[in-house]
Amino acid sequence: MAYNVQVCFSPASFPLFRDDEAIVVVIDVLRATSAICTAFEHGVKKIIPVSTLEEAFEYKKQGFLVAAERDGSIVEGFNLGNSPFSYMDEAIKDKTIVLTTTNGTKAINAAKNAHKVAIGSFLNLNTLAEWLCEQERNVILLCAGWKDKFNMEDSLFAGALAEQLLITKKFTSDCDSARASVHLWNFASEDLYPFLRNSSHRNRLGRLNLDKDIRYCLTPNQTFCIPVLEEGVLIKLEKDLA
Amino acid sequence: MAYNVQVCFSPASFPLFRDDEAIVVVIDVLRATSAICTAFEHGVKKIIPVSTLEEAFEYKKQGFLVAAERDGSIVEGFNLGNSPFSYMDEAIKDKTIVLTTTNGTKAINAAKNAHKVAIGSFLNLNTLAEWLCEQERNVILLCAGWKDKFNMEDSLFAGALAEQLLITKKFTSDCDSARASVHLWNFASEDLYPFLRNSSHRNRLGRLNLDKDIRYCLTPNQTFCIPVLEEGVLIKLEKDLA
Repeated sequence: MAYNVQVCFSPASFPLFRDDEAIVVVIDVLRATSAICTAFEHGVKKIIPVSTLEEAFEYKKQGFLVAAERDGSIVEGFNLGNSPFSYMDEAIKDKTIVLTTTNGTKAINAAKNAHKVAIGSFLNLNTLAEWLCEQERNVILLCAGWKDKFNMEDSLFAGALAEQLLITKKFTSDCDSARASVHLWNFASEDLYPFLRNSSHRNRLGRLNLDKDIRYCLTPNQTFCIPVLEEGVLIKLEKDLA
Repeated sequence: MAYNVQVCFSPASFPLFRDDEAIVVVIDVLRATSAICTAFEHGVKKIIPVSTLEEAFEYKKQGFLVAAERDGSIVEGFNLGNSPFSYMDEAIKDKTIVLTTTNGTKAINAAKNAHKVAIGSFLNLNTLAEWLCEQERNVILLCAGWKDKFNMEDSLFAGALAEQLLITKKFTSDCDSARASVHLWNFASEDLYPFLRNSSHRNRLGRLNLDKDIRYCLTPNQTFCIPVLEEGVLIKLEKDLA
């Protein structure tokens, strides 16, 4: 039996896709889920995703290390933002980080009742695809988008991952958004960075001089763990990838 | 000054795009907006779009000619469905038709507060593009989708129309869904019918033996009028296309 892979372009549409028996992969390529993959690769112990700055501030008062991003920038008064490079630091090893971002933590929250929520980015593409193929479950790829709208980079990653799943024949798809994502990925994959030059969020970050971040986030397979949500907290999935 | 063209993939996302000064083009290629274009081309006087079968039934009791489609088929007890061919009939000339469909009339309803609502399909592609270029307003292309999800055929038409607008340089776009639609259209346009072979709704209609309808709906520029919404009723735009 083949399992179904669907792509949901925005957290606002997720109720239309909801399947509590499925694995949901949350995708926010620029930059929340890339930062999360990088943080676990560099030894962070837990990430607590929260939706609002108010919650983040409460944690900060309690002494937590808190990352807060809005519209591409670190929110004043917090320790960290969304840049993957800020998580390549010995100081975060074995720490718990609280994280709130413009779109990514909202998407994680939308998915929280799924059988399992995993975090996806170009950084852990192959590791994630391999693991999903072993799970024997339907998969929903949930793009964080930009303020509930479709965005290009998350859809391209959804296409890259959907293609890897479909090619095994363990998965099939009845979903036009999955097909559209795979087409877009095939069109863009040869040279992703210039293709995204005109995308709205890449431009937004470009204006903030984050080109180094963007190039890193678009380079597949630089991290090898799968962050998953367990009782509202992100941890590194313990597994044995043969 | 360039105007903005945006693409909205589903009526459920339309509140995120809403701009009461914009022209909204409602798109339901298979088959509601194709049927509407065909009906006006063949002399229908007015089409009253209604959202529910209950409303449609009330009009029928009052003696109106009523078209009602759900999930690809004519609803039992009504006169017409969604097939463009059923509107190529002398009998509808100068008549008022009441119409309710699975997705199309819902999208028209979502857009009703816009400066102007126009009906788009491959059938009136060039006529519509030409008219939009004369209006000096932002344009939102609203895909009816399938039950609030993204669908392929509406997005492809949005890409075809967006490309015609952007090429004039009278329009620009800051919208990733417009860019994605144009890419999909460029990929698919050489041979639309086979490209759509695997799309979900085309399959749905294929099972109902509606291949003749599908081929007609995917053939550009067979009708030359622009249906527009005036006080809740669709009429043919009176204009002089030089």
